[in-house]
Amino acid sequence: MDIKQFINKNIIKQPSDKIDTCPFPTYRKKFKKHDIITRYGQIEHSAYFLLDGILESSIERDGEIKIIDFIFPNYFICSYTSFLLATPSEIQTMALTDCEVEFFYKWDLEEAYKTSMVANQFGRYVTEQFFITKVKRENDFLTKSAEEVYLQLLNERPEIIEKIPVNKVAKYLGIHPESLSRIRSKLIS
Amino acid sequence: MDIKQFINKNIIKQPSDKIDTCPFPTYRKKFKKHDIITRYGQIEHSAYFLLDGILESSIERDGEIKIIDFIFPNYFICSYTSFLLATPSEIQTMALTDCEVEFFYKWDLEEAYKTSMVANQFGRYVTEQFFITKVKRENDFLTKSAEEVYLQLLNERPEIIEKIPVNKVAKYLGIHPESLSRIRSKLIS
Repeated sequence: MDIKQFINKNIIKQPSDKIDTCPFPTYRKKFKKHDIITRYGQIEHSAYFLLDGILESSIERDGEIKIIDFIFPNYFICSYTSFLLATPSEIQTMALTDCEVEFFYKWDLEEAYKTSMVANQFGRYVTEQFFITKVKRENDFLTKSAEEVYLQLLNERPEIIEKIPVNKVAKYLGIHPESLSRIRSKLIS
Repeated sequence: MDIKQFINKNIIKQPSDKIDTCPFPTYRKKFKKHDIITRYGQIEHSAYFLLDGILESSIERDGEIKIIDFIFPNYFICSYTSFLLATPSEIQTMALTDCEVEFFYKWDLEEAYKTSMVANQFGRYVTEQFFITKVKRENDFLTKSAEEVYLQLLNERPEIIEKIPVNKVAKYLGIHPESLSRIRSKLIS
C-alpha cells in the first residue's frame, strides 16, 4: 500500500470519490539497516509512510535510550511535535532492517491544506491516530505490568514478538532482557 | 470568543473566507461550580469550548486522583480518546467555578467532516493542539522537577497560580501542598 492507497482505503468513503493522485507531492527513499531517518535534535520536516521493512523510534531520557515503538509497513512515522512546531526532535527513528518509505514535506502538506479537503481529512485522520497511539501507550505503561504489556503484544501485535530481537523488545517494555526471558519461560511453562 | 470566532481567528487565513456560521451546529450550556461535565467511565459524545469560568480535568490512577490540566476560556476540552473511539472516559472534567461552554456533538462534527473543508481544518487544528499539549505535559513531568514545573507555570500560565487554590495546584504538580508551600517560600526568599 502507498499513501494514495492509504487515503482511498481510510479517508475516502464514496467509491466515486477515490483519488488517482495524492493531494500533495510524495517521494520514495530506501534506507539500509541501522540508517537513521530522523536524528535527536533535528527539526522534522517530513512525515514517512513505511512501505517495506521495520523502523524503531526511541527517546533519550537521563542518558538512557527508551524504545517508544516499532513501526511496520502501512503505518506513518514522524517526530510530530517537531514537525508541527519546528522544535528539535526528542525522538529518533532508525531502520531496524533495510526499508523503503514514501514521504512528503511539511511545506507541501501545508500548501495542500489550504485548498484540498482530502489533504485536511488525511491530516486530521493521521493526527487522530498519533493521538490515540500516544494515549494508549502511556496508559499501558502507567497501569500495566511488563508481563501484561508483553501478553498484550502477543495478542495484538504478534509481529513485534516474532520479528524484533529480544533485547529490543525488553527495551520497549522497559525491563532487562533477563526479566523478559523469565516472563517468557513463565508463560511457556 | 465563541467557536465561530475561534475558527475565523485560527483557521481561516483569507479575510474574504471568514465564516458567518459554524460548519456544524453548536449549543450553549451553563454549569455550576463543582458540576461534572464529563464523568469517569462515560462515553464522550461532545467537545466543549470554554466561554467563561475555569474547568479542571483529572484522571484516576491506583485510587488516586491526579489533576491533568486546568482549562481557561477560549480553549477546548474533551475526553478525546473516548470521543474518537467511543471507549469509557478515563478523564473527568469538573467546573471549578460557575462556567459557560459552547459545545457540539460528535455526530454533527462527523457529518460536517464529509463535506466541509473548514470543519476538517478545524478538526485537524484542534487535534494537533491536543497532541502538542499532551506531549508537552508528559515531557515536563518526565524531565522537570516540581519546582521547575511550578516556575514554568509562573512564567507561561500565571493565571493558574493566581486563580487556582493551592491544594489543586499541588495535585497538578503531583506533590503535597506542604511541599508546594516550601517551594513558594524558597522562591520568595
